[in-house]
Amino acid sequence: MRDAILHGDASVQRRAIAKAITLLESTRAQHRAQGDALLTALLPYTGKSLRLGFSGVPGVGKSTLIEALGLYLIDQGRRVAVLTIDPSSSVSGGSILGDKTRMEKLSMHEQAFIRPSPSSGTLGGVAEKTREAMLVCEAAGYDIVIVETVGVGQSEVAVAGMTDMLVLMQLPNAGDDLQAIKKGVLELADLVLINKADIDADAATRAQAQISSGLQLTEIHGHASAHPQPQAAAGAQRAAHWQPRVITSSALHGQGIDTLWAAVREFQTLQMANGAFHTRRQSQALAWMWQRIDAGLKQSFKNHPAVRQQLPQLSAAVQSGQIAASTAARHLLAAAVGEVPTD
Amino acid sequence: MRDAILHGDASVQRRAIAKAITLLESTRAQHRAQGDALLTALLPYTGKSLRLGFSGVPGVGKSTLIEALGLYLIDQGRRVAVLTIDPSSSVSGGSILGDKTRMEKLSMHEQAFIRPSPSSGTLGGVAEKTREAMLVCEAAGYDIVIVETVGVGQSEVAVAGMTDMLVLMQLPNAGDDLQAIKKGVLELADLVLINKADIDADAATRAQAQISSGLQLTEIHGHASAHPQPQAAAGAQRAAHWQPRVITSSALHGQGIDTLWAAVREFQTLQMANGAFHTRRQSQALAWMWQRIDAGLKQSFKNHPAVRQQLPQLSAAVQSGQIAASTAARHLLAAAVGEVPTD
Repeated sequence: MRDAILHGDASVQRRAIAKAITLLESTRAQHRAQGDALLTALLPYTGKSLRLGFSGVPGVGKSTLIEALGLYLIDQGRRVAVLTIDPSSSVSGGSILGDKTRMEKLSMHEQAFIRPSPSSGTLGGVAEKTREAMLVCEAAGYDIVIVETVGVGQSEVAVAGMTDMLVLMQLPNAGDDLQAIKKGVLELADLVLINKADIDADAATRAQAQISSGLQLTEIHGHASAHPQPQAAAGAQRAAHWQPRVITSSALHGQGIDTLWAAVREFQTLQMANGAFHTRRQSQALAWMWQRIDAGLKQSFKNHPAVRQQLPQLSAAVQSGQIAASTAARHLLAAAVGEVPTD
Repeated sequence: MRDAILHGDASVQRRAIAKAITLLESTRAQHRAQGDALLTALLPYTGKSLRLGFSGVPGVGKSTLIEALGLYLIDQGRRVAVLTIDPSSSVSGGSILGDKTRMEKLSMHEQAFIRPSPSSGTLGGVAEKTREAMLVCEAAGYDIVIVETVGVGQSEVAVAGMTDMLVLMQLPNAGDDLQAIKKGVLELADLVLINKADIDADAATRAQAQISSGLQLTEIHGHASAHPQPQAAAGAQRAAHWQPRVITSSALHGQGIDTLWAAVREFQTLQMANGAFHTRRQSQALAWMWQRIDAGLKQSFKNHPAVRQQLPQLSAAVQSGQIAASTAARHLLAAAVGEVPTD
C-alpha cells in the first residue's frame, strides 16, 4: 500500500489512499497495528503540503468556496486534497455537511482527492483520524490539504490544531445579532473570509469593519503567559507576527479566490521566513500527542471496574453538594490508580 | 476546628479558618486526609454565600476596588471574605498581586477575612486550594466570598469556574492597542468594570462603547452545541439569560461601588429566579471533579516508570516528525495502563 500511495499513477494512488484511510479509521486492534506501521512508513514523506483549515456555519458556502479554490489551484498545476471534520455526523448519524452532493467538479478531477468525515467516534477520535488521513495525503504528494469543518462546536479548535492557517468564513450580516461569532473562534482565525458578499455589498463592508475591530479587541498581550489557554494546549493558536486579515468573496461567482490565495501565500511566506511555520507544526504534534494521551487515560479510567461502580453515586453526591468535588476526585483516583495526587 | 469555624466568635473563628486553610493547603497525605474529613463535615453549611470573581491586569485597581466594595458591604451589615489566585506566585516565587500591603482597612476589620494565594503548586492545585478555602469561608457564614485573580493567564477560567459571577476589570484605555482584552476572557465576563474612569472620562466612555460592541460580537448562539468549549468543560461559562453589562467606576474616590453592587444584586436575583444560579453551581462542581481527575491521571501517568523512561525520546521523535503523535500516544498508554484506546 505504501508504494501505491507514494508512486502509483493517479487512479491507483487514489484507491490506495482511500484504502489506507479506511484502515486507519478502523478500531480493530489488528488494523490499528497495521495502520501504525503504514503511518510510520509514510512519515518521512509527509510535511511538505500546505495545511489549510476552513470553518464556518452551514450555509456560508464552504463547499462552493473550496471547490472554486481547488479548481483554481489545479489550474495552476497543484494537487489538492479535501478532508472534512463533521462533529454532527457522529452525534446524529446524519451530517450537517451533506457530503454526497458536494464539490462534484472537484471530486471528479484527477488531481483532487476528497474524503468525507469519519461517521463515528468522539470528536477527538474523528479529529485523530482526519489528522492521520492528512498525513497519507501529504505522503501522496498533494500540495495543499484542506481540512474543512462546520462552525457549530469544538471542531474549529481541532482544525486549528492540525493546520498551518485557519480561515474563518462568515456571512455578510456577521455583525447582526443572530449571526454572531462563536466563543473563542475569532481568536483562532488567521484570516476571516466574508463570503456571499454579492448578496449585500453594504452589509459585507460593514461586517468587514466590525470584524476587523473585533479582531483588534481580541488581540493578545498574553503570548508570554505562564499558563497557556486550553486552545493553545490543543496546539490551536493563531499565528504570531501576523495581523489577521478580513477579506470578502463571492465563491458562487468566482470572485475573491485570487485575493484569498494571495493572502494565503503571503501568510505562508512570512511564517516560513520567521520560523513560526515550523514552530507551530512542532507544537501541534506535541499537543496532539498529549491530547491523545489525556483521552486514553480518561477512557481507561472510565472503564475501570471500581470507577464504573462508584462514579454514578459520587457524581450525584458532588452535584447535590454532599461531598466536595476534590474529595470525590481523590476517592476515584485512589480506586483507579491506587495513588492520591498531592497537588 | 469544625466548631470554631461554625460557631466561634470573630477572632477565634478567623484563627480557625486560617488554620483550616493551611491544613487544606498541605500536601502531606495525613493532612490531606484530615482536610478531607474537615471539608466533609463543613459541607452541609456551605453554599449560602454569593461567590464573586474579579479579574484584571496589574494596575487596574483590583485591591482598591475590592477594599471599597468590602467596606461598603460591611457597612450594610454583611461579612466579606477575599481569596486570591495568583498564577505568578507559584512560577516566580514572587507575586504580581503583592499581598503584604494590600487592603489594610479591610483586613483589619472584624467582619472581613482575607487570604492570599497559596504560594506553590500548579495553577490547578492553587485553584483547588482556593476553592476549598471558599467552602470553609462559606461554612463560617461569610455572606460574600470574593475570589480575585490577575489577568495574565488561565486563572480567569479557574475563577469563572468557581464563582457565581465574574467581573472583568479594565482600564479606560481598553480599546487601545496595548491594553487589549485577552483571548477568551471577555466571553467569560458577566460584567465589565472600567475602573479609574476619573483619569480620562472620555476614554472611559469610548471604552464602554467599544467593549459593549465587543461583547455583542462574542455573544453565542452555540449554547446547544454538541461539543462544549474547553472553558465550558472547566465549568467556566458566562451566565445564560443575561446580557453582560459594562459600567464605570473610580474605586479610589469611592465612585461606582453602589452601581456595581446594584448590578450584582440584579444579576443574582435574576439568576436565582430562573434557576441558572443553581445549575451553574452544579455543573461547576461536576466539572471541578473531572478536572481534578484529569490532573490526577496525568500526574500518575507522568510518574509511571515506563513513561518516565520513554517520554523524552518519544516527545523528541514526535516533534521532529519521525513518529506520528497518535502512534507515540498509543505506545505510552500501552506502557502505562496496558491498554490501547480504540477511539
